[in-house]
Amino acid sequence: MLVVMSYRATPEEVEAVVAAIEAKGYTARPIPGGERVAIGILHNKGAVEASHFLGFPGVKDVIPVTRPYKLVSREFQSEDTVIQVGDTPVGSGHLTLIAGPCAVESEEQCITIARGVKAAGAHLFRGGAFKPRTSPYSFQGLGEEGLRILARVREDTGMPVVTESLDTDNFDLVEEYADVIQIGARNMQNFSLLRRAGRSHKPVIVKRGLAATIDEWLMAAEYIMEGGNTQVILCERGVRTFAHHSRNTLDLSAVAAVCKESHLPVIVDPSHAAGRRDQVIPLSRAAVAVGSHGLMVEVHHKPEEALSDGAQSLYPEQFEVLCREIRAIFDVFQLADSV
Amino acid sequence: MLVVMSYRATPEEVEAVVAAIEAKGYTARPIPGGERVAIGILHNKGAVEASHFLGFPGVKDVIPVTRPYKLVSREFQSEDTVIQVGDTPVGSGHLTLIAGPCAVESEEQCITIARGVKAAGAHLFRGGAFKPRTSPYSFQGLGEEGLRILARVREDTGMPVVTESLDTDNFDLVEEYADVIQIGARNMQNFSLLRRAGRSHKPVIVKRGLAATIDEWLMAAEYIMEGGNTQVILCERGVRTFAHHSRNTLDLSAVAAVCKESHLPVIVDPSHAAGRRDQVIPLSRAAVAVGSHGLMVEVHHKPEEALSDGAQSLYPEQFEVLCREIRAIFDVFQLADSV
Amino acid sequence: MLVVMSYRATPEEVEAVVAAIEAKGYTARPIPGGERVAIGILHNKGAVEASHFLGFPGVKDVIPVTRPYKLVSREFQSEDTVIQVGDTPVGSGHLTLIAGPCAVESEEQCITIARGVKAAGAHLFRGGAFKPRTSPYSFQGLGEEGLRILARVREDTGMPVVTESLDTDNFDLVEEYADVIQIGARNMQNFSLLRRAGRSHKPVIVKRGLAATIDEWLMAAEYIMEGGNTQVILCERGVRTFAHHSRNTLDLSAVAAVCKESHLPVIVDPSHAAGRRDQVIPLSRAAVAVGSHGLMVEVHHKPEEALSDGAQSLYPEQFEVLCREIRAIFDVFQLADSV
Amino acid sequence: MLVVMSYRATPEEVEAVVAAIEAKGYTARPIPGGERVAIGILHNKGAVEASHFLGFPGVKDVIPVTRPYKLVSREFQSEDTVIQVGDTPVGSGHLTLIAGPCAVESEEQCITIARGVKAAGAHLFRGGAFKPRTSPYSFQGLGEEGLRILARVREDTGMPVVTESLDTDNFDLVEEYADVIQIGARNMQNFSLLRRAGRSHKPVIVKRGLAATIDEWLMAAEYIMEGGNTQVILCERGVRTFAHHSRNTLDLSAVAAVCKESHLPVIVDPSHAAGRRDQVIPLSRAAVAVGSHGLMVEVHHKPEEALSDGAQSLYPEQFEVLCREIRAIFDVFQLADSV
Repeated sequence: MLVVMSYRATPEEVEAVVAAIEAKGYTARPIPGGERVAIGILHNKGAVEASHFLGFPGVKDVIPVTRPYKLVSREFQSEDTVIQVGDTPVGSGHLTLIAGPCAVESEEQCITIARGVKAAGAHLFRGGAFKPRTSPYSFQGLGEEGLRILARVREDTGMPVVTESLDTDNFDLVEEYADVIQIGARNMQNFSLLRRAGRSHKPVIVKRGLAATIDEWLMAAEYIMEGGNTQVILCERGVRTFAHHSRNTLDLSAVAAVCKESHLPVIVDPSHAAGRRDQVIPLSRAAVAVGSHGLMVEVHHKPEEALSDGAQSLYPEQFEVLCREIRAIFDVFQLADSV
Repeated sequence: MLVVMSYRATPEEVEAVVAAIEAKGYTARPIPGGERVAIGILHNKGAVEASHFLGFPGVKDVIPVTRPYKLVSREFQSEDTVIQVGDTPVGSGHLTLIAGPCAVESEEQCITIARGVKAAGAHLFRGGAFKPRTSPYSFQGLGEEGLRILARVREDTGMPVVTESLDTDNFDLVEEYADVIQIGARNMQNFSLLRRAGRSHKPVIVKRGLAATIDEWLMAAEYIMEGGNTQVILCERGVRTFAHHSRNTLDLSAVAAVCKESHLPVIVDPSHAAGRRDQVIPLSRAAVAVGSHGLMVEVHHKPEEALSDGAQSLYPEQFEVLCREIRAIFDVFQLADSV
Repeated sequence: MLVVMSYRATPEEVEAVVAAIEAKGYTARPIPGGERVAIGILHNKGAVEASHFLGFPGVKDVIPVTRPYKLVSREFQSEDTVIQVGDTPVGSGHLTLIAGPCAVESEEQCITIARGVKAAGAHLFRGGAFKPRTSPYSFQGLGEEGLRILARVREDTGMPVVTESLDTDNFDLVEEYADVIQIGARNMQNFSLLRRAGRSHKPVIVKRGLAATIDEWLMAAEYIMEGGNTQVILCERGVRTFAHHSRNTLDLSAVAAVCKESHLPVIVDPSHAAGRRDQVIPLSRAAVAVGSHGLMVEVHHKPEEALSDGAQSLYPEQFEVLCREIRAIFDVFQLADSV
Repeated sequence: MLVVMSYRATPEEVEAVVAAIEAKGYTARPIPGGERVAIGILHNKGAVEASHFLGFPGVKDVIPVTRPYKLVSREFQSEDTVIQVGDTPVGSGHLTLIAGPCAVESEEQCITIARGVKAAGAHLFRGGAFKPRTSPYSFQGLGEEGLRILARVREDTGMPVVTESLDTDNFDLVEEYADVIQIGARNMQNFSLLRRAGRSHKPVIVKRGLAATIDEWLMAAEYIMEGGNTQVILCERGVRTFAHHSRNTLDLSAVAAVCKESHLPVIVDPSHAAGRRDQVIPLSRAAVAVGSHGLMVEVHHKPEEALSDGAQSLYPEQFEVLCREIRAIFDVFQLADSV
């Protein structure tokens, strides 16, 4: 971290900042410049409160230099993490497809969709039993009955299942049934939930918050890893911007940036990013082309009757097209990688 | 497009809108509803200026769809809600000041600050015992010991205390000690927590999420009211934008908009919006001038030693200046209201 | 809310939407128009899920108001526009590569880079003679001398040249030399410049503004077409968001959305979106995969000596990799299209 | 500026960066840290291309330390600039009110509004003769006839007039008639127009761009000052965010930040920020309370017939209320300042 002093800062003000840095157990290194002084902070361990020194007299700005995360970082582990979910590897060199309806509605619905997406090439089945809904009056999911349906889907199709845990109260229950536990975008900074996930032995998908920087997203993963669970999958699902031609703005540069910073697998959810069916296939192609390790896609055999998010769910036959196209792109990309 | 008339609109006002629509070459189709008239606009060619009819007498809004909330709405309850916290009313016609440190650090720290802010004019004391932190390595609060300190502050000063609940696990504990329970910005869509707050008998402050629309923010309050707790206070604390001259962008138009839509009290947290001390007093003045029912401000007697958010905490003497200035502005504004 | 049916919607599809509206307890009011049917939704209580009906067969959109543009719209011209630049077609079914340095610095620099990018597969050469710079103290371009250098590049390599016009004052001059005239992101709503471009006989690239909605972007193109110039190419180059892991956030859903709304070609500039070299190749792959009709990429043989934007310029050998990879993806995508 | 090296950077890579810095005529100062090296750049004059060094091998990040502007900065001139427009001072210690219709529509309209706003307390009259419109099909202003009407308003009321120049082509004409020339938000980075304004002898209002950082906004002012015109007034008018309860999000922290960074006067346009009449008075109060040196407000005697922006225009009697309220707040604030 760098504390930049005002050009009018007195030597006493510089001294006071140096003293405060050292009182916190860090090393202060003043850097006299042409017009002003900056003070570098070297710290042995732990994070420096980024804004702490902003309030000191004579301080103009405080600039973070190093990243706040550790365990998720490539500086901690340079080789890619690959997570095994049943027979399916998630991460470097693999393209993992997770598909299914937004919400578990019935066994018949789930089995129908699951067989369809498996035939098309999906590896994991997704479906929400506990649904985070903006309105208290919307369908909130089937709860434990939904989890039991997911278990029957797994039995029927052999596909591992992905489902969301909304809070620490239902985490145990979700953990009992799920093969992969999802933490939703709105819970990305629900630190109690992250801590609980850190004590789980199941892989966890952490979706990026609607307005999360990649530092904050990686810090959410850091909470889980710090708790002892190293099986973390990141999922980009669009951020909120002024644009309204899609529900959120899918940020594919985040995939490239995170792959550079972190060893964890990164997948993309084009369905929630788009919020509308007609953009899901093009965005899926783009996600694979940018280097995503997988996709999580909403598919429904009767989207017009879906209890939630029908407008963004693909028809099964569209999902087949999607699989074909991204597989071909992935092959190209893999080839390119080895050039 | 739908032009929604005020429920008090006269037949003449409806006629005038219809006439204006047709004067522009469109077809107007009035749709009489239960409570009000809406007017559909059919247009042959060219664009309708979306906001054009917003300015007509009797027109309430020009919209694609009505609002998703009910209980929090002025259509459900037209008069302002005023919430009583001990001797302190929060809401219409009152200006409530909540002040204290970001985190409870020690009894001495809290008592010192509490006496100072009370003398300056604060009504409620704030301090975090459980802290939501971006990093798992940062100070996470004193927990129950922090709550006990808050109880002693209340005993010593007579001030009711405001503190945050992070999750359903610690809600009972927080509820036992706190006079007002805060739900933080990162938890605004933690629906389990909102539901638990809906079963509480204590007033709840709901901070606006970093990227929340006012519809989503009001829906968070709706969750609580739907659960039976009508004592909800909204708190604007800045949203995340591209701007970086302040930590977040304080959105004061949200205060004006929410006061129009909802009967609930709305306060402003200038400290988290600014993220830097030098903007807190100007933004506090602006918040009161726009019509906020109160402020929540961070104050620390030794901000340079604070365990969190020191850079944005006011010195006690600055808080005195703040109180003086906003009180004067509030008096003007009240006067204006009665003109 | 208004559910707008596709102009090809069958009476059965209209009926299905009406039935679905009523099944939800709302009243449906079909409004037959000149070209299509729209269905107004009257609802007694509760909220209509805005996007719910978007997924129905025959439904084109669910909207408050129709689009403001005309000439650029697919409703005006359903088949794709293909623009001929010398021997190079731009638009549907073609993948056009525009490459070159940010700024024209010298004849030697331009010829060297131009020969390199041509060999790698570029069709058009780009280079700025007049540069829009945030600072008045930065290098502003070589002006007319830069244009003369571009002419010599064209002579030497046979490549048509793309360069930016900053204002109506220099438009004549730029028009004299350039094969394609670029209007930069900061000028997207410089309406005088757009009008002048509308009177040009040269193709015009309109870059999307940093905070432009696609409606505004298409309206900028509408200004040019309204003036009589039908040769407009749209260029997505990232929008400004809170994210700072890339200079701007590349919005690839905009490409999908614009291709649906408009018949004009859409290309992508990954260099300005990323602002850093290491994201340019991944974002280029993604852009082609999403369906972009081309790319505009910055390449410099000595980026560390470039007078502007060196950090985002590819080395010539990286551009070769890029060409190989995107060509392969484009082939896949074309194949998929014909499935 | 600080170049942060990767922790794996070799001594040779550090050396290469140092050499490149010095080859550009700057001084490089390596700062060895615990885990990595950072290199400070000290520069005598001119701006360092912020991203230039990002592309070097071994470089992890490049962090700007000092501000890019000079003449507009308080480091260049510490005392506030006060600009004289006729009898009206704009800047420190004064509260200047600019009011009038969005567009000049007729002499009768302008004289009527001008007399009304003058009586209420406005100092300057505003009205657009050349209008920047998103659509080529919208009313574009009366042009020179509009300027002549403004001149007659000035003659009739004695009020100086403010009007916008859209481009270098019409600048001479606007300059001939106007007392203050406005550069609109969409033209904030129209550098040709800024340069022309720099050669003017009339005061210039520079509106903040929809997605402009305050650095970019101040750089726009720097262009004008660098050209020799020191009479620059900054105008905050809201930025574009995801929020849609107001047309733009008024960013009042920008006023506080700019007043600290720059000696130039800063005013606020609440009308374009809000886009709806009912927020204009509350936001005006807030703007004055935060420390704005003035307001620019749209007023129309028949807003429902206005040719543009009627929905956000105040009725004259509302403007009277506004004047009364903000004057009272300003008095409080001035008092507070002297405490």
